[in-house]
Amino acid sequence: MPNVETSIFTEMSILANQYQAINLSQGFPEFDTPNFLKDKINQAISEGKNQYSPSNGLPELLTQIAEMVHRQYQTHLPDAQKLNGLNNVTITSGATEALWVAIQTLVRPNDEVIIFDPAYDSYEPAVELAGGICRHITLDAPNYAINWPRVEQSINEKTRAIIINSPHNPTGSILSESDLDTLQSLVEKHNLYVISDEVYEHMTFDGLRHESVLRYPQLFNRSFVVSSFGKTFHCTGWKMGYCAAPNELMAEFRKIHQYVTFCSFTPAQIAIAQMLKEQPAHITELASFYQQKRDVLINALKDSRFTLLPSKGTYFLLLDYSAISTLNDREFCQWLTKEVGVAAIPLSPLYPVEQRPSYHKNNKVIRLCFAKNDDTLRKAAEILCQL
Amino acid sequence: MPNVETSIFTEMSILANQYQAINLSQGFPEFDTPNFLKDKINQAISEGKNQYSPSNGLPELLTQIAEMVHRQYQTHLPDAQKLNGLNNVTITSGATEALWVAIQTLVRPNDEVIIFDPAYDSYEPAVELAGGICRHITLDAPNYAINWPRVEQSINEKTRAIIINSPHNPTGSILSESDLDTLQSLVEKHNLYVISDEVYEHMTFDGLRHESVLRYPQLFNRSFVVSSFGKTFHCTGWKMGYCAAPNELMAEFRKIHQYVTFCSFTPAQIAIAQMLKEQPAHITELASFYQQKRDVLINALKDSRFTLLPSKGTYFLLLDYSAISTLNDREFCQWLTKEVGVAAIPLSPLYPVEQRPSYHKNNKVIRLCFAKNDDTLRKAAEILCQL
Ligand SMILES: CSCCC(=O)C(=O)O
Ligand SMILES: CSCCC(=O)C(=O)O
Repeated sequence: MPNVETSIFTEMSILANQYQAINLSQGFPEFDTPNFLKDKINQAISEGKNQYSPSNGLPELLTQIAEMVHRQYQTHLPDAQKLNGLNNVTITSGATEALWVAIQTLVRPNDEVIIFDPAYDSYEPAVELAGGICRHITLDAPNYAINWPRVEQSINEKTRAIIINSPHNPTGSILSESDLDTLQSLVEKHNLYVISDEVYEHMTFDGLRHESVLRYPQLFNRSFVVSSFGKTFHCTGWKMGYCAAPNELMAEFRKIHQYVTFCSFTPAQIAIAQMLKEQPAHITELASFYQQKRDVLINALKDSRFTLLPSKGTYFLLLDYSAISTLNDREFCQWLTKEVGVAAIPLSPLYPVEQRPSYHKNNKVIRLCFAKNDDTLRKAAEILCQL
Repeated sequence: MPNVETSIFTEMSILANQYQAINLSQGFPEFDTPNFLKDKINQAISEGKNQYSPSNGLPELLTQIAEMVHRQYQTHLPDAQKLNGLNNVTITSGATEALWVAIQTLVRPNDEVIIFDPAYDSYEPAVELAGGICRHITLDAPNYAINWPRVEQSINEKTRAIIINSPHNPTGSILSESDLDTLQSLVEKHNLYVISDEVYEHMTFDGLRHESVLRYPQLFNRSFVVSSFGKTFHCTGWKMGYCAAPNELMAEFRKIHQYVTFCSFTPAQIAIAQMLKEQPAHITELASFYQQKRDVLINALKDSRFTLLPSKGTYFLLLDYSAISTLNDREFCQWLTKEVGVAAIPLSPLYPVEQRPSYHKNNKVIRLCFAKNDDTLRKAAEILCQL
C-alpha cells in the first residue's frame, strides 16, 4: 500500500509526547470515563463475565441502544418504524471497525464511493482495499457545506455509496434537515447506499439539532449508521462502537463482522448497557458539556492572531493561521509542537494525495481538540496568543 | 455473500443455551481468567487508563510478548535473529482480527491461498473478501497430517500463501519439525508467504513440542504468526490477540490494522503486559493443565461407544460416532444438544460447501471442547456413555 502512511493522529500524538507539548491533536478526552461505568465494568470482570459475547453483541446492549435511539431520534415514528436492537444493531470494536465492515459489505471491485474532503483518514483506504474507488468532493471553507449539485454531477452507473459524516470531523460543520432530504432523493433516484458516520452525534452546539439518519426511516432503509461509545463516554481506549442498519443490510454486515473481530470486549458491553439504562443524563448533557469547553477555548483565543472558524459540533475547532505563518500546515504543526509546545492536526493529510500541494498553498488551517480540562485549554490558548 | 452463514460456533452456542445442554461446542473455557489479571485490569481502569493506546499496541506489551517468545522458542538463536517486539509485533482485537488483517495484507484479487480442511471457518471468507481463491487440501483421519506432495501439486503461478494451524482446530493434530522444514523449502522454492495460526501454541500434550514458526527465522521471514491471549489466559471475551511478522510485512500489516480497529482495549494491554512479566508460570503450566482435562474426558468416555481420535494439542477432542448413529454430523449434533443434553460441533461446516455432502456420507466425527471443569466433563461423559 504505497499511498498509505501512518495515520496523522498517531504521528502527532507521538510527536506531542516526545516534545512534551500540550496535546490538542488526536481526538481523545483528557478526562476519564464516568465512575458509574468504571464500577460496572470492574464488577463484570470480577464476576467472571470474561468469555465471548454473541458475535452481534449482548442482547441487553442492543436493546438499550435501540431505546436510546427511540428517545433521541424516533419519538415521531410509529413503533413499527423504530429501530429494533436485536435485528438492526451490531456491536463493533470501535467505530473504525463499523466503518471498515460497512465498506466491505457494500463495496465490490470498481464500485465508486463519494466522500467529502477533508475526510477522516480511514474512509479511502478502506474503500480501496475493498477494490473500490473514491470520488472526492471538496467542502469549502468557512462553512464546509455540501454542494449537492456537484455531488449529483459525480454520480455515474458505478457509484455505489456516499459516506457522510455529521457532526463533521475535522471541520465541526453539521448537516441540516434539508441536506438529508436532498441526500434521500439522490440515493433513491440513483439507487445508492449511505454510510453515515455519526460518532459525534451527541455533540452539537447552540441549540442545533443533530440530523441523524435514524430520524428518516426511508433514508435509513439504505444506510449504515455508525456511532462510538468511546466518544460518548470518554473511553476511546475501550474501542466500543456500533453499526445500525435495516434488516437485510445488517444481515450481510454481520456475516463479515464475525470474521473481522467476531465480537467485542464482553465486560464493556455489560457496563455500557447499564450506563445507557441507568444514567441517560450523561448523553443529554454532553452537548452543553462540550459547548462550554468550546467556548472556553474560543474565549481564551479571542486576542490571538488566529482566525477561528465556526464549530457547530464535534470536539474540534479549526484555526486559520495565515496571519501568523507562511509555513504549510504540516510544517506549521511540527513547529507548533516542537517549538511552541502545543500539538495540533494539519488538515492536508485529510485530503487526497493529489490535492495536498494545493491545500498546502492555499489553506492555512489546523485542528485543535477541545476535549480537555479547562486549565489545559487556557494554558494552550495562552501560549497560542503569544504568536 | 450467499455462501456465508452464521458461524457454526454461534449456532451451537445458541442452541445449547436454548436447550440448557452442557456446552462442549464453541471453544471457550468454563473457568475464569486468573485473579492477577483481573486485579491488574481493574486497576488500570480505575486509574483512568481508558484512552487510545498506540495503534500497534502498548510498547510494554509488545516488549513482553517478544521476551515470552525468546524464552519459549528462541533460546537457540543469536540476539540479532530474535523477535523485536516494537518492530515485529502488533496487538489485535483477537486472533480473528490478526488473521483478517494478515489476509488483507497478502491477498490481492485472483491470488490463490492454500488451506487445509477441516479449517477454522474465517479463513475462506476472509480470503474471498480480499478477492482471492482458496485451494483446499484435505487432511485425512485419524492423524490429519499434511500430505506435502499434494500441497506442491496444487501450487501454481497464482499461489500467494499457505495458511497453517498448529495445534490444529478442530482435530488436535500438530505439525512436526519435519513439516516445518518441508514448508520452508516449499515457500522458498515458490516464493510464497505463510500465515501461521498458533492460537493453541501453549497447549501440546504428552511432551510434544509446539513447532512455532518463530523457532525458524528463515521461515518466519515469510510469515505472519497469529496468537491469542483469550485462549492462553482464559479470557476469550477480551478479544486480545497479536500478530508477529518480519519488518516489511509488519509495516504493511500495520497500515491496514490502523483502519480496521486502530487499536485494542487499553486496560487489557496494560494488565496482560504485567501478567506476562510477573506470572510466566501460567503459560508454562498450561499444557499440563489441559492435558489433565483431556485425560479426564478420555477416561470418562472409555466405556462409551464413541471411538476417540488422538488429541495432541488444543482443547478439543474428536469423537467418531459411527457405532451410535447414522445421522449426518449436523443432525447428530442437533439431536445431541436437544435430546441428549450435550452440545458439540459438527465438522462438516469446517469443510468447503461442495465437500460437505461427501463428508456427511463418509465421516461421522464431532468435536468436543474440554476447556471445562472436571465435573462438567464427567457429567457430559456420563450422558454420552449411555448412547
Ligand atoms: C483513532 S485515532 C483518531 C481519533 C480521532 O477521531 C481524531 O483525532 O480525529
Ligand atoms: C470465535 S468463536 C470460535 C471459537 C473457537 O475458536 C472454536 O470454537 O473453534
